[in-house]
Amino acid sequence: MTNFDRDTTRERTAATVQALPAIEWITDARVERLSQDFYWFSPVLKRQLEGLRADAVARPRTEDEVRAVVSACATAGIPITVRGSGTGNYGQCMPLHGGVVLDLSAYNQLLWQRPGLARAQAGIRMMDLDKQTQPQGWELRCVPSTVRSATLGGLFGGGFGGVGSINHGPLASTGNVLGVRAMSIEPEPQVLELRTPEALLLHHVYGTSGLVLELEVALGPAHPWLEAIVCFDDFDRAIAFADTLAAAPGIVKKSVTLQATPIPDLLLQAVPALAGAMTPGQHAVFVLVAEYNEAALQQLVAESGGSTTFRKTAAEVKASNRTIVEYTWNHTTLHALKVDKGLTYIQSGFAAGRHVQQATELRTLLGDEVLVHLEWIRTKEGAMNCSGLQLVRYVNDERLDQIMQIHRDHGVYIANPHVYIVEDGKQGQVNPDVVAMKARLDPQGLLNPGKLRGWEQRDQLLAGNPQRPMGLSTLPSF
Amino acid sequence: MTNFDRDTTRERTAATVQALPAIEWITDARVERLSQDFYWFSPVLKRQLEGLRADAVARPRTEDEVRAVVSACATAGIPITVRGSGTGNYGQCMPLHGGVVLDLSAYNQLLWQRPGLARAQAGIRMMDLDKQTQPQGWELRCVPSTVRSATLGGLFGGGFGGVGSINHGPLASTGNVLGVRAMSIEPEPQVLELRTPEALLLHHVYGTSGLVLELEVALGPAHPWLEAIVCFDDFDRAIAFADTLAAAPGIVKKSVTLQATPIPDLLLQAVPALAGAMTPGQHAVFVLVAEYNEAALQQLVAESGGSTTFRKTAAEVKASNRTIVEYTWNHTTLHALKVDKGLTYIQSGFAAGRHVQQATELRTLLGDEVLVHLEWIRTKEGAMNCSGLQLVRYVNDERLDQIMQIHRDHGVYIANPHVYIVEDGKQGQVNPDVVAMKARLDPQGLLNPGKLRGWEQRDQLLAGNPQRPMGLSTLPSF
Repeated sequence: MTNFDRDTTRERTAATVQALPAIEWITDARVERLSQDFYWFSPVLKRQLEGLRADAVARPRTEDEVRAVVSACATAGIPITVRGSGTGNYGQCMPLHGGVVLDLSAYNQLLWQRPGLARAQAGIRMMDLDKQTQPQGWELRCVPSTVRSATLGGLFGGGFGGVGSINHGPLASTGNVLGVRAMSIEPEPQVLELRTPEALLLHHVYGTSGLVLELEVALGPAHPWLEAIVCFDDFDRAIAFADTLAAAPGIVKKSVTLQATPIPDLLLQAVPALAGAMTPGQHAVFVLVAEYNEAALQQLVAESGGSTTFRKTAAEVKASNRTIVEYTWNHTTLHALKVDKGLTYIQSGFAAGRHVQQATELRTLLGDEVLVHLEWIRTKEGAMNCSGLQLVRYVNDERLDQIMQIHRDHGVYIANPHVYIVEDGKQGQVNPDVVAMKARLDPQGLLNPGKLRGWEQRDQLLAGNPQRPMGLSTLPSF
Repeated sequence: MTNFDRDTTRERTAATVQALPAIEWITDARVERLSQDFYWFSPVLKRQLEGLRADAVARPRTEDEVRAVVSACATAGIPITVRGSGTGNYGQCMPLHGGVVLDLSAYNQLLWQRPGLARAQAGIRMMDLDKQTQPQGWELRCVPSTVRSATLGGLFGGGFGGVGSINHGPLASTGNVLGVRAMSIEPEPQVLELRTPEALLLHHVYGTSGLVLELEVALGPAHPWLEAIVCFDDFDRAIAFADTLAAAPGIVKKSVTLQATPIPDLLLQAVPALAGAMTPGQHAVFVLVAEYNEAALQQLVAESGGSTTFRKTAAEVKASNRTIVEYTWNHTTLHALKVDKGLTYIQSGFAAGRHVQQATELRTLLGDEVLVHLEWIRTKEGAMNCSGLQLVRYVNDERLDQIMQIHRDHGVYIANPHVYIVEDGKQGQVNPDVVAMKARLDPQGLLNPGKLRGWEQRDQLLAGNPQRPMGLSTLPSF
C-alpha cells in the first residue's frame, strides 16, 4: 500500500493552507465532522475508522479554486479525499491518511437544464437540483433518502441509486448518466469531458479514480407523488402487495418499501411525527405513486387486504416539508439506531424473480435477529427486484459475517457495508478499467488513498493490456 | 344462439331510420365499407365474413342522439354493432345479423384533461386526443399503429394495447383505464359510470357487454420521440439488441419492434418512402426512444454490432407527418400483404423471460414459412416480454392451425386472429363477470350478437352465483 507519512502530510497541508489564502479553508474543530460520514452505522467500521481526521478541509467555489487546491496538493504529494455532504455509510469520504478533504458542497451550481437532461456542478444538493427542474416537470431519476442534503457528486462517487430506481434502475444503468467533467490530480491539472460508458469508471469507487467536477444526467418526469403507508397483519400479504405494486406497469410510482415488523414500531418510537401513520405491530409498505393512479393503488390495497394508514397528496407533502422518503433506505437504519443502539444493518441484492421467495425464506430462517427492510428497484438490466437494508441485532463481527454468509448461501448478493475498501464491498476485483482510469487521472495515487486495492495491484491488473478498451462489463450493479 | 330474422331486422331498421330523421343515417353504398374492418388479413375470416352488411349506419354526435338510436333499436329489437374507425382485424365491428351499425366516430370530444389523465368521448381518434394533450406534455399510454384513424373506444372495445405497452403494459393493466360511462341497451337507456376494475368488463369483448360512451384514461409523459431503425446481419444479435434495449431501465422508449428478414424487404417494396431506411436482406429493429437518451441508444447499437440506417428527430417526424409506427404492429401485416397476397399472420404471446429463446427456436423450426415480427411489451403484471405478429405463408386452414398449435406446444400463447368469437380468440371461457355485465347492460342481447358465446351459455355461467363480485382474475391479457 502507498504510504503517507502522517507528520509529513500534516506539515505539507499546513503549508498549502498558508500558500492559498484565497481558498476557504477549515482547520478548526469542524474538521472532525467534515472528515466523517455515517460509518458508525457499522460497529466494525466504527472501531476501524473512528478518529480519522483530515489536516484541513478546502471548500472551493469555482473550478479555478478546485484547480488551485488540486495543483498544490499534487505538487506537494498530499492526499485528497473528495466529499459531498458526507451522507455515505462506509467511510467513503473519510481520509485514511489525512491530508486535504475537498468539500465540494459550495461548488453547487445547476449549469443548464433541458427537457429530460441537466448538468450541474458535483456539489449541488440533489433537492436543490430538483427544486430548479421540477417547475419544468422534471426531476432526478433516482435519489437517496438523504436527497435533502446529499450532493449529486456524492451519489455518483459513493452511492448506488435509491428512490426512483424502481423505474430507472441504479444510477449505473445505461442512459442515466450521460457524462462527467473530470480533473486530473497533477501539478498542472487537466480537465476532460468523459462520456458514458467511460464516465462510469468514476462511479461508485469513492472518488478514487478521478475528481468529478460536473455531471450530466438524464431526468425523469416529476409527477405529483402521493405518499401512502399501507399496513398488513400478514408478512406474505405485505410482500405480495409490495411486489405486485412495484411491477404493475399501469401504476406510475417512485418507490415501494417494505418495513417488516417490528421496524414500524421502531420508527413510531423514533419519529413522533409518525404517530398514527402506522398500525403498531403490523408490517408497513411505504409507497410513492402518481396522484392520478391513486384509484389503481387503492384497488391493489383492497385486493391485498391491507389498510391505508397514511396518505398525503403532493401538495400536502410540499406544504409540510416532510416526506416519507426520509423513513426509507438508510434513513430507516438511522431512525432505528436512535431507538436501539444494538442494531446495525446489511445490504443485499436478491435474485430478480426469486426475490420474494428468498426474502420470505430468509426471514423465517433468521427470525428475530434480522429485521426485514426491503426496497424495490429495477436491476441494471431492467428486471424488477428488491434490495434489502435489513437491520441486524449485532452480537459480534463473526455472527454478522455469518448472517451475510447465510444470505450468500441462499443466492443473495451482499454489498457488505462493514468494509471501506471498494473491492471488499463489491466482493471481488474492481474492473481493471477503473484502475486504468485512475492511472490516467491520478498518477500519484493521491485520491482517497487506501480505498482501492486494485490500485496497489495495478502493475498486475494492467499488465499486458495497457490499451484495453474502456468498458463496463465487469462493473457490479450494487 | 339468439336468432334474428334478417328480413324482420331489415324492415325494423328501415322504420327506425324513418322515425329518427334528426340522426345522421347512412344507407347508401357506404354501408358496406362501414360494416367492415381489416378482417381480410385472415383468409379464414375473409371467407366467413365477406358480404356482411348492416341495414343502416347511424352516426350520432351527442349522447342524446346515441340514446335516441339505442332506445329505438331496443324497442324494436334491432341488433346494434358499435364501431369506431373499423381498424380492427377480426371482424370485431362487423354485424353478423345486420341491423344498425352505431358509428361513434362523430362522437369525439375530449371532455377534459389534467396532468396524467384525460376523459373523452369514445369516438375520438387517438391522434386527435394526443394532439390536444401533447402540448401539455402528455399523451396516450398505448396506441395501435392505427393511431392516426383509430378511436379510443375502438381500442378499448376491440383492441389490446400497442405502441407504449412496452412501458405500461396492455390497456387492461391496472391503472391505465380509470373508468367508463356506459349506456344500457333498453327502451329507456340507463347511463352509468363504471370505475375500474368493473369498467374493464367492457374491454376487449367487441362491444358485446355494454355500450361505452366515454372513457377516462391515464396518460403518459409525451417525450420527444426519436425514431430509428437499426439493421443486423445476424438474427441472434438483432433479437438480443431489441431485448436489451426494451428492458434497459435507463433508456426511455415508446416501442421496440423486430422485423426479421425478409420483412424489411417486403416493407421496402411496399413503401417507396422507406427507400434507404433499411439494408435489404438484413433484420431491422424499429425503435422510438426519448431524444435525450439517444447517446445511450447508440451505445447499445455499438455494443450489439448493428448499424443505424434511419434516424429522425421528433421535430423531423412531426414535420414529415410520417412515423415509423405506421410500419409496426398490424401495419407491418398490411404493407406485407400489399406485396404478397399469399401472406397472412398469427398473434402470439411468448412466455416472459423465455421469450427470446422461444422466438429463436420457433424461427429455426418453422423456417421460411413464418416471418418473424416481434413487438416488445410488458405483460399486465409488468414483466418484459414480446408478442409476435408473425407473417405466415398461407397454405390452407389446416396448416395455419398447425402452425398455431406448434407455437402452443412450445409454450407460446396464441390469440387466434382467424376467429370472430371472443372466446375463440382468447382460447377458452370468457370471464362470467363479463356475461353478468352484459345481462345488466344489454338484457335483450342486441349488442353485436353472435360474438360472445358465453352469452348463449349465460344460464349455466351465471347459475348459482348471481351476486358474484366483479373481478378480473380470469381475464386473459391478450
